[in-house]
Amino acid sequence: MSASSGLVISDYSVHDVRFPTSLTGDGTDAMNTTCDYSAAYLVLYTAPPGTKRSQPPRSTPSDDASKPLTGYGMTFTIGKGNEICCSAISSLVEGLLLGREVESLFSNMGKAWELLVSDPQLRWIGPEKGVIHLATAAAVNALWDLFARSRGKPLWRLVADMSPEELVKCVPFRYITDAITPEEALKIFQDAQAGKQERIEEMIKDGYPAYTTSAGWSGYDDAKVARLTRSALAQGFNHFKLKVGASLEDDKRRLSLLRSIVDDPKEMPGGRIAPTAASISGKNAGPTGCVVMVDANQVWDVSQAIDYMKELAYLKPWFIEEPTAPDDVLGHAAIRKALKPFSIGVATGEHSHNRMNFKQLLQADAVDVVQIDSCRLAGVNEVLSVLLMAKKFGKIVCPHAGGVGLCEYVVHLSLIDYICVSATHERNVLEWVDHLHEHFVYPVSINSGGRYRAPVDAEGGYSIEMLQSSVEDYSFPNGSYWKSGEARTAPPSAH
Amino acid sequence: MSASSGLVISDYSVHDVRFPTSLTGDGTDAMNTTCDYSAAYLVLYTAPPGTKRSQPPRSTPSDDASKPLTGYGMTFTIGKGNEICCSAISSLVEGLLLGREVESLFSNMGKAWELLVSDPQLRWIGPEKGVIHLATAAAVNALWDLFARSRGKPLWRLVADMSPEELVKCVPFRYITDAITPEEALKIFQDAQAGKQERIEEMIKDGYPAYTTSAGWSGYDDAKVARLTRSALAQGFNHFKLKVGASLEDDKRRLSLLRSIVDDPKEMPGGRIAPTAASISGKNAGPTGCVVMVDANQVWDVSQAIDYMKELAYLKPWFIEEPTAPDDVLGHAAIRKALKPFSIGVATGEHSHNRMNFKQLLQADAVDVVQIDSCRLAGVNEVLSVLLMAKKFGKIVCPHAGGVGLCEYVVHLSLIDYICVSATHERNVLEWVDHLHEHFVYPVSINSGGRYRAPVDAEGGYSIEMLQSSVEDYSFPNGSYWKSGEARTAPPSAH
Repeated sequence: MSASSGLVISDYSVHDVRFPTSLTGDGTDAMNTTCDYSAAYLVLYTAPPGTKRSQPPRSTPSDDASKPLTGYGMTFTIGKGNEICCSAISSLVEGLLLGREVESLFSNMGKAWELLVSDPQLRWIGPEKGVIHLATAAAVNALWDLFARSRGKPLWRLVADMSPEELVKCVPFRYITDAITPEEALKIFQDAQAGKQERIEEMIKDGYPAYTTSAGWSGYDDAKVARLTRSALAQGFNHFKLKVGASLEDDKRRLSLLRSIVDDPKEMPGGRIAPTAASISGKNAGPTGCVVMVDANQVWDVSQAIDYMKELAYLKPWFIEEPTAPDDVLGHAAIRKALKPFSIGVATGEHSHNRMNFKQLLQADAVDVVQIDSCRLAGVNEVLSVLLMAKKFGKIVCPHAGGVGLCEYVVHLSLIDYICVSATHERNVLEWVDHLHEHFVYPVSINSGGRYRAPVDAEGGYSIEMLQSSVEDYSFPNGSYWKSGEARTAPPSAH
Repeated sequence: MSASSGLVISDYSVHDVRFPTSLTGDGTDAMNTTCDYSAAYLVLYTAPPGTKRSQPPRSTPSDDASKPLTGYGMTFTIGKGNEICCSAISSLVEGLLLGREVESLFSNMGKAWELLVSDPQLRWIGPEKGVIHLATAAAVNALWDLFARSRGKPLWRLVADMSPEELVKCVPFRYITDAITPEEALKIFQDAQAGKQERIEEMIKDGYPAYTTSAGWSGYDDAKVARLTRSALAQGFNHFKLKVGASLEDDKRRLSLLRSIVDDPKEMPGGRIAPTAASISGKNAGPTGCVVMVDANQVWDVSQAIDYMKELAYLKPWFIEEPTAPDDVLGHAAIRKALKPFSIGVATGEHSHNRMNFKQLLQADAVDVVQIDSCRLAGVNEVLSVLLMAKKFGKIVCPHAGGVGLCEYVVHLSLIDYICVSATHERNVLEWVDHLHEHFVYPVSINSGGRYRAPVDAEGGYSIEMLQSSVEDYSFPNGSYWKSGEARTAPPSAH
């Protein structure tokens, strides 16, 4: 009998948690000039059927000492508007999940996903995009967290242990059967059975390759960029991303500075060996094997993107990320075609709002790198749809991370991609940003080789449970941090 | 000195207004099986600078007897989730509009629009799509309503009286300059200067051509469809839309029934003359000149849409509306190509979430009919972007209406399209649904020729002000209708 046998979803709490990252310039880019990284955070409580809901509603995530099984999920925002996502999460959970038997949900997670996206009235305010989809992600991911905890496995391991037939049942195919059918998906999962156990062991031993964005925010001055780049080299990173698009002259200077450090053999800590030729092919790697990427966060129109990136081509970025509006499939295709002669690829996806948008990016050959987001797509199920399509179309997946909680989430997704879908990470790198991990009960971390450690805590689920004290202190606007003068008077930290 | 001189936006109220349309089957289709037509309704109050905000916040839309100038806007939903849109409207107005000088906003409505869509933190939860965009529409439209009222003109007339140079300043071009430039837009507005006054007079005299959806909801039985079709013929309509996609056999029967009535010369009231050849070309009109359209409300995948519509081709619909996911530009293009040999066009747009999606629908030649929505696009400004692109790409615009308030809104938009942009309505028809107009202070209506009357009230603005009693009675969940037993016990009306 599993830990969740006979339980229903009996109660929930939603928390508007905001961290004052705008004080330090963390997370700044050409579009997002002030960011308070925030989580619309959901806790699902379970109890035997008929248990009375707590009255008044719970205000903190674990004020019930007896909690038999609890699931955690969140969606990510950058500050204002987090309250709107919280409102949407409450509407979804209140209307669709309360009272449901958890084992019945776990027995077909595909159906559970459909339940959450198919309410006609809530669908109208998307459909499957924006606030309601962000909220759906929090609910779906909390369900998966609950599922993994009930089985005593980290999320990635729960999924990796599913059979191909079980996996295919989890995948939403609606609106994408012209790109991938359930039969094709089954074949992909079946093909990935070969070598699966070895890949699981490899991941536990070596971790998953990562790149760092921590050094390249717009709000950092040159000295800080240089210092953080050297620090990242020392941590074992060899892929570095820089924010661009606010000023061409500044970008040339900052990108030159970055390249001058990472291309200099004398800067390599301990005579580190460059990555293998295979892993850097097509990535515009410099003489030390290091790779640089740039990210414009949607600031340009199509022709502006092309013109600007031609100016930066001499600095050989591997790809330009989010050159224009995330909805603009044909625009991305035009940009990719124009930049091909300059050996600059196109990456996008952190704002790609559903599997239909990714489908078209792939069909139109508009991207080189597929950047899924763990909570802009509606959780694990829809991520599987996109991983499968990327595999079929021969594109690599490098998930979006950073913010708060995204690194915790996405390591699971890259492990699933490698173990169950793509069976390769030859060219993949997973974004790493070293912020705010201290607020999580099971924080992810990077090993000495600049790789994500695979989460192994049997109780950690999807790794997204936050410390109760963090939830309380940073709840907006009534948590102790936001109530205190601290919120208005704290000086920029010397991050 | 205008009525708004020196005033600032001093206060606002937001109302979750829901009408119990699910009781009658109004608004039902293959996707939306129960709809309570709802408005997330915004009232903007103005006052001289320094006036204190009402405490507690206003609970009814016009409890201030002295109101110097008030603006009304709304976004439309179908029930649950309306509260989320209300939350988003509050966040937008609270953060971005309160305290602003209204004449300064009116002096450059393009800049006012940018102000509302460019907050980096609120942008993140779209961007420019879903709940935050629906909310932006309510705010933008309330501003336009305020602007029109301050000038003593209906909205369409305010816009029609702008010079081409003023108009072009109102248009958002971000992300669409690869499809239309400000210079091209200016040229379109300038070209439409010829004959403008005649078109204004024609519209006031004759009204704008309409089609009816009132007869064809999924929830209606055959007798009701027949009765409402005859009633629509008597009202002067010659374009009829039917909902399809729930059952092929039912659809064949219902569509045959509809055609049998509208194609029968004996059914034509008073020996009415059929429309001119020009107006029906390419519309699969029957022997009496009547045209039938069908609407699937996104229920199909791409190949399902093609297969299903081939089965209905013998009933000669002019177009299939929303055959698949609204985001799927390439899917619509594939469907359109496959149905071309069957003389069935493709229409979409009521869920097309922003100008970037419309841009691609046009670039990919994916649609025959562009169906803008007055409050899914972010208000009048973004509608202008799409009208301009449709004109450039040679497509006709037939706005989405129905619901609650949409007919009130869109008549203004079709008049603007005809008078300022396209300069033709030879093939256009504007959706008409005869529901809920009784709740508006300036309701739109249909003349004896089955055409929308042009709104002429000098005080009517954008025609979206609701009766105070309607807002109070249908406020959810505390209005008198929802509090009373009526909400649970009312029998389906014999609509």
